[in-house]
Amino acid sequence: MQHFESDYLEGAHPLILKRLMETNMEKTPGYGCDAYCESAKSKIREACNCEHAEIHFLVGGTQTNATVIKALLRPYEGVLAADTGHISTHEAGAIEAGGHKVLTLPQTLGKINAEAAERYIELFFKDANHDHMVRPGMIYISHPTEYGTLYTKNELERLNQVCKKYKIPLFLDGARLGYGLMAKQTDVTLEVIAKNCDVFYIGGTKVGALFGEAVVITKPDLTNHFFTMIKQQGALLAKGRLLGIQFDTLFTDQLYFDISRHAIEMAEKLKQGFALKGYEFYFESPTNQQFIVLNNAKMAQLSEKVSFGFWETLDDEHTVVRFATSWATKATDIDALFELI
Amino acid sequence: MQHFESDYLEGAHPLILKRLMETNMEKTPGYGCDAYCESAKSKIREACNCEHAEIHFLVGGTQTNATVIKALLRPYEGVLAADTGHISTHEAGAIEAGGHKVLTLPQTLGKINAEAAERYIELFFKDANHDHMVRPGMIYISHPTEYGTLYTKNELERLNQVCKKYKIPLFLDGARLGYGLMAKQTDVTLEVIAKNCDVFYIGGTKVGALFGEAVVITKPDLTNHFFTMIKQQGALLAKGRLLGIQFDTLFTDQLYFDISRHAIEMAEKLKQGFALKGYEFYFESPTNQQFIVLNNAKMAQLSEKVSFGFWETLDDEHTVVRFATSWATKATDIDALFELI
Amino acid sequence: MQHFESDYLEGAHPLILKRLMETNMEKTPGYGCDAYCESAKSKIREACNCEHAEIHFLVGGTQTNATVIKALLRPYEGVLAADTGHISTHEAGAIEAGGHKVLTLPQTLGKINAEAAERYIELFFKDANHDHMVRPGMIYISHPTEYGTLYTKNELERLNQVCKKYKIPLFLDGARLGYGLMAKQTDVTLEVIAKNCDVFYIGGTKVGALFGEAVVITKPDLTNHFFTMIKQQGALLAKGRLLGIQFDTLFTDQLYFDISRHAIEMAEKLKQGFALKGYEFYFESPTNQQFIVLNNAKMAQLSEKVSFGFWETLDDEHTVVRFATSWATKATDIDALFELI
Amino acid sequence: MQHFESDYLEGAHPLILKRLMETNMEKTPGYGCDAYCESAKSKIREACNCEHAEIHFLVGGTQTNATVIKALLRPYEGVLAADTGHISTHEAGAIEAGGHKVLTLPQTLGKINAEAAERYIELFFKDANHDHMVRPGMIYISHPTEYGTLYTKNELERLNQVCKKYKIPLFLDGARLGYGLMAKQTDVTLEVIAKNCDVFYIGGTKVGALFGEAVVITKPDLTNHFFTMIKQQGALLAKGRLLGIQFDTLFTDQLYFDISRHAIEMAEKLKQGFALKGYEFYFESPTNQQFIVLNNAKMAQLSEKVSFGFWETLDDEHTVVRFATSWATKATDIDALFELI
Repeated sequence: MQHFESDYLEGAHPLILKRLMETNMEKTPGYGCDAYCESAKSKIREACNCEHAEIHFLVGGTQTNATVIKALLRPYEGVLAADTGHISTHEAGAIEAGGHKVLTLPQTLGKINAEAAERYIELFFKDANHDHMVRPGMIYISHPTEYGTLYTKNELERLNQVCKKYKIPLFLDGARLGYGLMAKQTDVTLEVIAKNCDVFYIGGTKVGALFGEAVVITKPDLTNHFFTMIKQQGALLAKGRLLGIQFDTLFTDQLYFDISRHAIEMAEKLKQGFALKGYEFYFESPTNQQFIVLNNAKMAQLSEKVSFGFWETLDDEHTVVRFATSWATKATDIDALFELI
Repeated sequence: MQHFESDYLEGAHPLILKRLMETNMEKTPGYGCDAYCESAKSKIREACNCEHAEIHFLVGGTQTNATVIKALLRPYEGVLAADTGHISTHEAGAIEAGGHKVLTLPQTLGKINAEAAERYIELFFKDANHDHMVRPGMIYISHPTEYGTLYTKNELERLNQVCKKYKIPLFLDGARLGYGLMAKQTDVTLEVIAKNCDVFYIGGTKVGALFGEAVVITKPDLTNHFFTMIKQQGALLAKGRLLGIQFDTLFTDQLYFDISRHAIEMAEKLKQGFALKGYEFYFESPTNQQFIVLNNAKMAQLSEKVSFGFWETLDDEHTVVRFATSWATKATDIDALFELI
Repeated sequence: MQHFESDYLEGAHPLILKRLMETNMEKTPGYGCDAYCESAKSKIREACNCEHAEIHFLVGGTQTNATVIKALLRPYEGVLAADTGHISTHEAGAIEAGGHKVLTLPQTLGKINAEAAERYIELFFKDANHDHMVRPGMIYISHPTEYGTLYTKNELERLNQVCKKYKIPLFLDGARLGYGLMAKQTDVTLEVIAKNCDVFYIGGTKVGALFGEAVVITKPDLTNHFFTMIKQQGALLAKGRLLGIQFDTLFTDQLYFDISRHAIEMAEKLKQGFALKGYEFYFESPTNQQFIVLNNAKMAQLSEKVSFGFWETLDDEHTVVRFATSWATKATDIDALFELI
Repeated sequence: MQHFESDYLEGAHPLILKRLMETNMEKTPGYGCDAYCESAKSKIREACNCEHAEIHFLVGGTQTNATVIKALLRPYEGVLAADTGHISTHEAGAIEAGGHKVLTLPQTLGKINAEAAERYIELFFKDANHDHMVRPGMIYISHPTEYGTLYTKNELERLNQVCKKYKIPLFLDGARLGYGLMAKQTDVTLEVIAKNCDVFYIGGTKVGALFGEAVVITKPDLTNHFFTMIKQQGALLAKGRLLGIQFDTLFTDQLYFDISRHAIEMAEKLKQGFALKGYEFYFESPTNQQFIVLNNAKMAQLSEKVSFGFWETLDDEHTVVRFATSWATKATDIDALFELI
């Protein structure tokens, strides 16, 4: 049985485990007030070329989204997102549990565009009843999106312009950010993201860490007492250094980028394999997630030999499934897969 | 200037004010524990032919929706509603402020249908990730809808069947219920509603009262401590008898129904007037709200002589506007309108 | 049977009902955008000598407290209040339902003092773990308190100074404000309150209106989109003019003050009556609520002839009960009471 | 510099890291649906002698408390806790952020007693206004308490009886449970806890794990869809096996108990050392946290050589500080400490 159902099947990159082992019996202050966190923050600031950025480490993606959104919005505001955005669908209502509406925009390949967002906001202000409605208070995007697709630099800049025009922040969910940054042909770098987003996070859970997401607030006066918000949301790790050590390792000697690039190469190999075998892609994805359309009989048959992710029901006879590579995928895994099927 | 912008332009039906005057200096216990509330409840139970119904009086519609939904749902559940439903659009995020997602269904003329609701629920259960998603925990409909349209008895029964099948309650927002019940050709009576809905409310604010909504819980074991929920939501009126007196009056000698029928007759007269003048209706509405498509130049011109409600932007050149009649509309108002335009 | 259990036993002052009758069939815009609301706001601004105040009309006290507190606090903040404060005890958890902790201070006769509040805040900042704790984000007081007692001008000024020092707002719950303003020997006027509080409300429900509370925000840049917050909290009355008309009447020709003074005179008469009969007061109250200690046998006996409010269990054999006068209490009611007992 | 400021200074017990290393490249399903979690659950069920218990693994204490409490309470309910309870003080308002009031009871040495809890509930029901108040919906205790003290078996049984009488659950926060179970002279075993509590959690973060808390629901029909609640609260770890592996290791060959016993022995040694040097204990603690009263000059002097935890300001001249041992404390650390001071 080969496994391609997600990019969080394994533990952590061996260098991370090594650092955790080496530092295990050191005594450090809790809650992120340790030297490893400081070092990691400093390296991330440098990688983003954003020296005044405020950085916080949280454990997982849903809690990061919920904490950032609750910290940034006022009670009368909601967050604009693609209707396929993670916060719209697979976070069990965490944003609403925090009191905020997710205002959905239609998407194309998982992306929203600046024009649609602006139109939404304009219509809101033109609506004579808008004081009875939830105000759009920020824009949320994911990059890569839930469909593995990527924004271009120009698209991010235009979203940034819309946000500036209406004085609302742009928040980028980077749960799989590494795989986006290392995609071929993308012009979006960490620096581009730091320049265009008010807040974003660099995903660790799916990119080499045991767990962990690094929130980067590029405009430090955007929020107050974010630490207390993290605590209130149950997102504060007692042994905060576990996050510091992981991100410090990932941002030493380009590890984060190198392992991400490897996952992209594995995705390319996977793509070629499926293409050769005549499988139908749901669409072209430049990152580590590949979506394939299977008829249900084929799906049943295939699932005896390889495990993949259910994505969505396409029609009564077809299902979209996901194959994901990661930092941990080996070329031999892919060879083995195509021998099996 | 003639006024047709809403059905809450005036105070209350004169008989209600008369009762408030007559009883003004009586001393009664607060919070709805008075004889007027008891009498009103008893009359409503009879009108619904539902003798065991639990009845509560609240002040306004948004607070009623928020209180009912918060009382009925568990934190992991959301409420299914039309994407044009009042709770989806014009309640300033009150449902989300209470922690719950509004799960929207596409609508036709403001209505959802049982098949679409069932399909949504089925897809939810078929989704391998549904434990990461908001569970559909109730169905919300408005009758009349925000577009003035009506469900048929059969449509309500089918919604009821879907709710029963999945063991979730059906909640009907009756902010304008009287105008629905008295529409011509409807087969939906109060008794039909009480039989098919787990909870609904009978709107007073827009149908003859100064304010007030009567919540009818047809299955009394559906919820506990609803009184405390009302208090917590800030929806408990200290002088509860004001609500009791109003609903007691409305449900004495068929007043609620008679004044509703009058509004329907006025709406018919309005419709004929517009039709004669060649105005374009957005669609056919059988109740007291009529939606007309105007080009924007015409709208500007018309708005000097008559006030109407903005509904929605149709395209760059056209706007949908609303004309509403009510228990208080006089035939001479309509005559005057058509002399003006 | 004589009734003294609360100050909301009757409807409204006859002048208010008269105005409601006279204006009943007028057509006005909804949600408080009418001329009566404007007029009432203008009169209240004048009475407060605070021309730039932002004023909103809500229906009841709990919803007003919940809305103001949610609008003013950030998610990491709580509200300091007496442990006997209405928000701490009798609002069914409305403040917590809005996400905020009520941080309680010990009280003396229902009042907190500036020193205790400052000590709390100082201890908070000295606590090495304060980033793990709820930040004190505003001070809430009631005037009169739940025990009928009053702050002095000096006490309000000192609370104001503490609030200024820590840059948090002072919020005064004036559900019974009229009875406080007209108490004998108080030096606290509306103007004093407007000068010392960032937000307060002038209670109508218990002081002559059918219902209604006028929120006065003395620093208009304190909050944004308060209207939307009112809507979200379910506290927006469709026929907003009902509130405008009531407050306009109350603030015409000093009506609010005159009827409040009457209630105070009735309270004095009641006090004298009880004192003459040898009843024990729980403490001296200068306003319309009088608290008397009864042994439980006496209480049972008395309750056959007069209805009063349960206040609290003092010990196994004694109960504190409340007698309230109001704008509506007649001297003959009190005479009748003392003939009975 | 010697470190005794907390029991989460180091990483994890070496056996845990070893297991994480060994299993690192295995591919497992996410979100706790792996064999390690199953195995750990099975061992915990056995250790509790509670074969039908439902078990979930979460990351940290605050999120566990918030998730359990939100899952168990209805919106009109609050949670009874000591006013020194962790949820009352150091969780940044997480419980209130979830909509629930913490109803505080006075404590003795961090403990509440069944009589006080019952009195509170009785007074609630006797209060004529209790429908306007937050209903006590569960009892929360911590064991060991925040002061390091322990309930006796008899005290737990009496709390259980009160809970049963009023049909509310008893929830035990066991963030430091191991240190409680291994204290000398305690008669409270895991089995006693499982028998008397409806829900409790076994703390890993402070007892040998990198992080992690095991929630044990002893009455499986107590709650529904707890998994979705965990997800909504942002408390679901993608690589759930990290928790499974850690708890599986801790509950293999009594590791959890052995390392806890070690911490207790170290605490005894620390106690003797301080006693010999004439230090004043704030009170007698049988577990791994020791509280010492220092005058502030002494505290400043001491803090140059050893780091300890600030606990609370006792008076202007004295502070209570905390020294904590843990599974990781070495006897030589303590010797070194007493050489320094």
